[in-house]
Amino acid sequence: MFPILPSIKGFIEIALNEDIQIGDITTNAIIEEDSISVVNVIAREDIILCGGDIFKEVFLFLNQSIRFQERCRDGDKVSCGEVIMELSGDTRSLLIGERVGLNILQRLSGIATLTAKYVELIEGYKAEIIDTRKTMPLWRGMERYAVRCGGGKNHRSGLSGGVLIKDNHIRAVGSIKGAIERVKRNLTRMVKIEVEVGDLKEVEDALEAGAEIIMLDNMSISEIKKAVRLINGRVPVEVSGNIDMESIVEVAKTGVDYISVGSLTHSASAVDISMEMG
Amino acid sequence: MFPILPSIKGFIEIALNEDIQIGDITTNAIIEEDSISVVNVIAREDIILCGGDIFKEVFLFLNQSIRFQERCRDGDKVSCGEVIMELSGDTRSLLIGERVGLNILQRLSGIATLTAKYVELIEGYKAEIIDTRKTMPLWRGMERYAVRCGGGKNHRSGLSGGVLIKDNHIRAVGSIKGAIERVKRNLTRMVKIEVEVGDLKEVEDALEAGAEIIMLDNMSISEIKKAVRLINGRVPVEVSGNIDMESIVEVAKTGVDYISVGSLTHSASAVDISMEMG
Amino acid sequence: MFPILPSIKGFIEIALNEDIQIGDITTNAIIEEDSISVVNVIAREDIILCGGDIFKEVFLFLNQSIRFQERCRDGDKVSCGEVIMELSGDTRSLLIGERVGLNILQRLSGIATLTAKYVELIEGYKAEIIDTRKTMPLWRGMERYAVRCGGGKNHRSGLSGGVLIKDNHIRAVGSIKGAIERVKRNLTRMVKIEVEVGDLKEVEDALEAGAEIIMLDNMSISEIKKAVRLINGRVPVEVSGNIDMESIVEVAKTGVDYISVGSLTHSASAVDISMEMG
Amino acid sequence: MFPILPSIKGFIEIALNEDIQIGDITTNAIIEEDSISVVNVIAREDIILCGGDIFKEVFLFLNQSIRFQERCRDGDKVSCGEVIMELSGDTRSLLIGERVGLNILQRLSGIATLTAKYVELIEGYKAEIIDTRKTMPLWRGMERYAVRCGGGKNHRSGLSGGVLIKDNHIRAVGSIKGAIERVKRNLTRMVKIEVEVGDLKEVEDALEAGAEIIMLDNMSISEIKKAVRLINGRVPVEVSGNIDMESIVEVAKTGVDYISVGSLTHSASAVDISMEMG
Amino acid sequence: MFPILPSIKGFIEIALNEDIQIGDITTNAIIEEDSISVVNVIAREDIILCGGDIFKEVFLFLNQSIRFQERCRDGDKVSCGEVIMELSGDTRSLLIGERVGLNILQRLSGIATLTAKYVELIEGYKAEIIDTRKTMPLWRGMERYAVRCGGGKNHRSGLSGGVLIKDNHIRAVGSIKGAIERVKRNLTRMVKIEVEVGDLKEVEDALEAGAEIIMLDNMSISEIKKAVRLINGRVPVEVSGNIDMESIVEVAKTGVDYISVGSLTHSASAVDISMEMG
Amino acid sequence: MFPILPSIKGFIEIALNEDIQIGDITTNAIIEEDSISVVNVIAREDIILCGGDIFKEVFLFLNQSIRFQERCRDGDKVSCGEVIMELSGDTRSLLIGERVGLNILQRLSGIATLTAKYVELIEGYKAEIIDTRKTMPLWRGMERYAVRCGGGKNHRSGLSGGVLIKDNHIRAVGSIKGAIERVKRNLTRMVKIEVEVGDLKEVEDALEAGAEIIMLDNMSISEIKKAVRLINGRVPVEVSGNIDMESIVEVAKTGVDYISVGSLTHSASAVDISMEMG
Repeated sequence: MFPILPSIKGFIEIALNEDIQIGDITTNAIIEEDSISVVNVIAREDIILCGGDIFKEVFLFLNQSIRFQERCRDGDKVSCGEVIMELSGDTRSLLIGERVGLNILQRLSGIATLTAKYVELIEGYKAEIIDTRKTMPLWRGMERYAVRCGGGKNHRSGLSGGVLIKDNHIRAVGSIKGAIERVKRNLTRMVKIEVEVGDLKEVEDALEAGAEIIMLDNMSISEIKKAVRLINGRVPVEVSGNIDMESIVEVAKTGVDYISVGSLTHSASAVDISMEMG
Repeated sequence: MFPILPSIKGFIEIALNEDIQIGDITTNAIIEEDSISVVNVIAREDIILCGGDIFKEVFLFLNQSIRFQERCRDGDKVSCGEVIMELSGDTRSLLIGERVGLNILQRLSGIATLTAKYVELIEGYKAEIIDTRKTMPLWRGMERYAVRCGGGKNHRSGLSGGVLIKDNHIRAVGSIKGAIERVKRNLTRMVKIEVEVGDLKEVEDALEAGAEIIMLDNMSISEIKKAVRLINGRVPVEVSGNIDMESIVEVAKTGVDYISVGSLTHSASAVDISMEMG
Repeated sequence: MFPILPSIKGFIEIALNEDIQIGDITTNAIIEEDSISVVNVIAREDIILCGGDIFKEVFLFLNQSIRFQERCRDGDKVSCGEVIMELSGDTRSLLIGERVGLNILQRLSGIATLTAKYVELIEGYKAEIIDTRKTMPLWRGMERYAVRCGGGKNHRSGLSGGVLIKDNHIRAVGSIKGAIERVKRNLTRMVKIEVEVGDLKEVEDALEAGAEIIMLDNMSISEIKKAVRLINGRVPVEVSGNIDMESIVEVAKTGVDYISVGSLTHSASAVDISMEMG
Repeated sequence: MFPILPSIKGFIEIALNEDIQIGDITTNAIIEEDSISVVNVIAREDIILCGGDIFKEVFLFLNQSIRFQERCRDGDKVSCGEVIMELSGDTRSLLIGERVGLNILQRLSGIATLTAKYVELIEGYKAEIIDTRKTMPLWRGMERYAVRCGGGKNHRSGLSGGVLIKDNHIRAVGSIKGAIERVKRNLTRMVKIEVEVGDLKEVEDALEAGAEIIMLDNMSISEIKKAVRLINGRVPVEVSGNIDMESIVEVAKTGVDYISVGSLTHSASAVDISMEMG
Repeated sequence: MFPILPSIKGFIEIALNEDIQIGDITTNAIIEEDSISVVNVIAREDIILCGGDIFKEVFLFLNQSIRFQERCRDGDKVSCGEVIMELSGDTRSLLIGERVGLNILQRLSGIATLTAKYVELIEGYKAEIIDTRKTMPLWRGMERYAVRCGGGKNHRSGLSGGVLIKDNHIRAVGSIKGAIERVKRNLTRMVKIEVEVGDLKEVEDALEAGAEIIMLDNMSISEIKKAVRLINGRVPVEVSGNIDMESIVEVAKTGVDYISVGSLTHSASAVDISMEMG
Repeated sequence: MFPILPSIKGFIEIALNEDIQIGDITTNAIIEEDSISVVNVIAREDIILCGGDIFKEVFLFLNQSIRFQERCRDGDKVSCGEVIMELSGDTRSLLIGERVGLNILQRLSGIATLTAKYVELIEGYKAEIIDTRKTMPLWRGMERYAVRCGGGKNHRSGLSGGVLIKDNHIRAVGSIKGAIERVKRNLTRMVKIEVEVGDLKEVEDALEAGAEIIMLDNMSISEIKKAVRLINGRVPVEVSGNIDMESIVEVAKTGVDYISVGSLTHSASAVDISMEMG
């Protein structure tokens, strides 16, 4: 179950206002006030479900008397044609909330489904799939949850949630060593220091200066192999940059610990889910 | 230029808070307060640019003294390797705003780029590409703008912005005729009545009852052709449902007026754009 | 029943904070914590009721255990002295919410009552009464609803909800024809094009250029008659500008379709409603 | 000048979003991006101006480069036909902000103009015109300012801003004396205790119990006279309830100190002001 | 009971988001979704309790099914080791809300406890303890309530809640008389005029000009005595400035009416309260 | 310099609205609109300054034309009587913003000053002073900054910013080992695992199970010594619980790495700073 954090309620409120605007003129003109309906939410392709609890919250925001019969839970595999949930209650609310509810459910399930494909591809290898900060602004908490539903894990939550020294930081200071020293001086040892490196020389510099996680950015498979050998288990190794379904198994074979995949969140397609009157 | 509506400023504020959290601990530890830098925003593939003005606003929100040299405008074709914009000013602000800025720019340019591909495919035909309400919640205004940058047009802005009688409305009332009558009774003639239909019988019913736009939903090419012949220019015709790059030319050939493509917004991939220290 | 959109809840929250400030020092000093009361909401003149559901929501916001016995519904004619609703529960909440609740109820019922007077005046004529965008900022959704409760209809919801080419647009472009052409080039045919005109020459220009609704702005009765004859049913005709109780019947007699009345919302008086301890 | 409190900026932001929705489709379609215009704001009847600074803020919110030439200040008498202000700059922003700006300016000037009429009627008498809490929810700060522009004064700002023991308080406790005693026990003597009374007996009770202001609610002229004689200057006297242009002079003649007029804010008509391209 | 004003709900929402960020990674990793627990809230020193209702609201915000057994009410003396409240329900919610709930409860009880100490010290004297506007920004409503729970009373609620002419006002105008005259000209007599004075000469000026409350600011005990004698009961007297536990009895002995103590809110320590699994 | 994050601007807006309410009735009545003043901000005791940039932002929010001459920067030692900053501009804005500005400046400087005292006490020892999550709700970002200004460092930013397994987590699972295993299973190795322990047995369990930081909670000096010996530098050691000025040196002598002091933020007194007209 996804905990409906206070911020999620705010998200839903804005989302509903964005779509409803000043009222659904079609539904208000056509549907009687006291009309009651039953609708089914149905998967139109094979998916990993994510967002069921948020979906319910959308309708509860409109009308607290809507009732739900859930057939599947977040993280479940749902086959094409299967019923995910049955909703019953005020027809107007069901019609008015449909698009916002589905827009959320289809995107989050899209992310979970894509993540699961990556996870399956590298099953048996040590490497784990993790997400990035390349999430849709205003969606991060939900998207990270979708990655977990698909079997992935989460990288740092944001700029306060971990130290990651990137190429631009290094360039600004002049050296990896200088950057790591400043971090050690200004922060506690309670946070691990991750350093993004682009070649083997930088791997060596980072290890020497005290990096606690190494991120290999946009390196070739052969370079990654060398880096893994060089690091030799002293610190966790993350690979990042332009990972896709073709390349990921080769990367996993190198023995790295984490493969971060930006496209999980910045380029997942929505899956097809529909809502139909019973 | 994209008008920075009041609501966009609110969007940027939330987006920055979401990523920055309580402060960028890495940047604050490493970069001196008075450090100044120049960075370039560079396209890493061929794109249609969208979001340049919003991107600037992200940095201005953090620091009003950042300066910008724009080399391209929204709607421009930008080639791989080309510089889109040069930013100069406070290094911390440049690093802290990078991810949020790029997340927005990459998604909006992704939508514009995808839209342009569809538009190009059906060049020479009467049909125009339009968007749907399948936008990412909290992003609609920006995504509609991206569709226009790519050469598409916009469908209704939300549930107050037009009448669209869908299958669930019809089912709830019992007939197309009944639904249209209620709309006519309750609303003025200032808004056009669009009706979603699934077969030729419904096309006839809709026309007879006074539909002013017909949306052909999930119909085969041969059915669409028949529908277009039946409607015969009396009202605009929209085709909707599972349009992709393979099918769209065939649809355009049938002579319809509008082809709405949900994947423009619900499934566009982010394009690759980077920000590099000069 | 008025659907309590998410935005209405936000409205009520701000309204209560505005009046309560940091607490009702009088009520907190005088009324015991566990005191329970019954109060009646009573019409002090003949009205068309509007806002009953929002009124209830005000008290529920303060205290979810308040109970309501509704004697009248929105849209009902309520006579002077009649009880609209009975509330029972926590005395402090009843006293604290009184002013905000009545301020909303009195204004919305004022608009509904005024609208009903206009509607009644032109009963039997084809013309319908519609509202304008001259609503109180932050009140539009509720005020449009009040107009409907009084028997009127709604014009476009806002600047995204329809095309209306006004005198300033025409002046900026140079001609009606030019303005309409730009609209046709940039927007779909799904939205009707309304044009504001000031004389017969402009009516002709607008029709010729493809206007789909004609708004006659501030024209004399004799001009309106000529315009109606000229338009001859080809498109709907709206009359606008300084309509009052004296002039409206003459306008309706000309055969126009819509009469928009700004004073419905910008100048409606509050009606008298009181709340009294039982 | 009206101080643009932080809350006013929030008000303007919501007001603009309410009207603009997702964009002004007409203006964006017709007006070129780089178009520049000059417009005049003109009084269409004799008014007391109020809201000029807020009006400017509306346009500055949309576009910081709009420039203003003010010909009149808040509180000024402006004659029909006179130019209030000249605006110049980006045409789109001028057109998009027009309705929101005028809606605010017309209402606030309406309140100031109405207040000034009441003030003028009782010139020469001791009594002063004051407002009530019967303001439009979300507008109180601005409306109180408008009352001051018209020459009136303000009653308490809200439920924390003063003690006013009303009939329902008295009924709940059982006696005026009991209510006043509780106030004295729970609050400091820094706030004056005002008591609403309905007859002479209650005036006596209130004075005896220590009331510091007496509000005569809905009493006849002859009763008011007797009450004034009875109170005899010991505390300020306010008259409240159904005051209008006919009755106010008679009330003023009785020698009361304050006359509170709810209709100043709950029933003021908008005045006519237009904005025209130069 | 503390009335949970709408603004308090907003406060709790922001407070929870601030601490939870994007989710409690520890609790989510360790605690099962369906785990249920009972926890006790226990005083770890002798306190005056304040904030129990707000504390409950924190957990209800996270999970509406949490149940509470309250053993103490706001304003109660609670001894070290005593159980204040028992909570039962979803373990995750109990752990996630703990820190925010305790942070509020410990601070408000700290203020109530400190206030009670001051109140006790001057028991038997006429003087009453009141608070100031030196509250923590965003906490005023709750802190004023805490002062009342501790037996103190409240000064004006904010800048609209009363007139207080301070040294900087007097300096800007040039004289106490001038400042008071302007207040009388611009405001009604419904609000008392308090004047801050620094010596006996100013006391005389203030009285003469019509001050209705005198605040003696930072004056010595002997000066205060003289001022009290001079004022001689004509208006209430407040003493302000650097009051502490040592000096307060001496101040009370002088016969003043109110002693305002800024440190009640700006420098109260949190009291020790813990939350332990049963 | 403190970066004014978007969230800080929101904080200031709410803080100003909370105090100003609907307007400063005293200042508006007394001070002329066009009055200009110069005021000095002066330390009234020896302090470590913190909050200067936020203080400026308060006044800029009210009036963008206020000018500042800064004599001291955040983190500076400022002696009693020294001028911190000179402000000049609109008198009304200076008076209206005074209390909110000082309330923030006095609290943040209070925290920085208190932190600096702790830091000084343990100078020469390895241990560093760190803060806790016992911050005032809605103030965390600013309070963490104040701790840094005083020479301390920051613990995790919130519940997403690090793993801390507390006693209640352990009790819920049944063992330290079980809790750590679940964290390892569900989270990456990118975040360090901190475990709170109460005795030496738990120290052993935690180390064995893979704890990466040990927090010794409420242990005696002799137990801390033993724990430090047992841990022997394998992981960083934090001491927590009831640290005060008396006990801290003894704790530091044990050789621990971090001493977290809740009272830095939950019980810091405001320092005395005044604002005086020049």
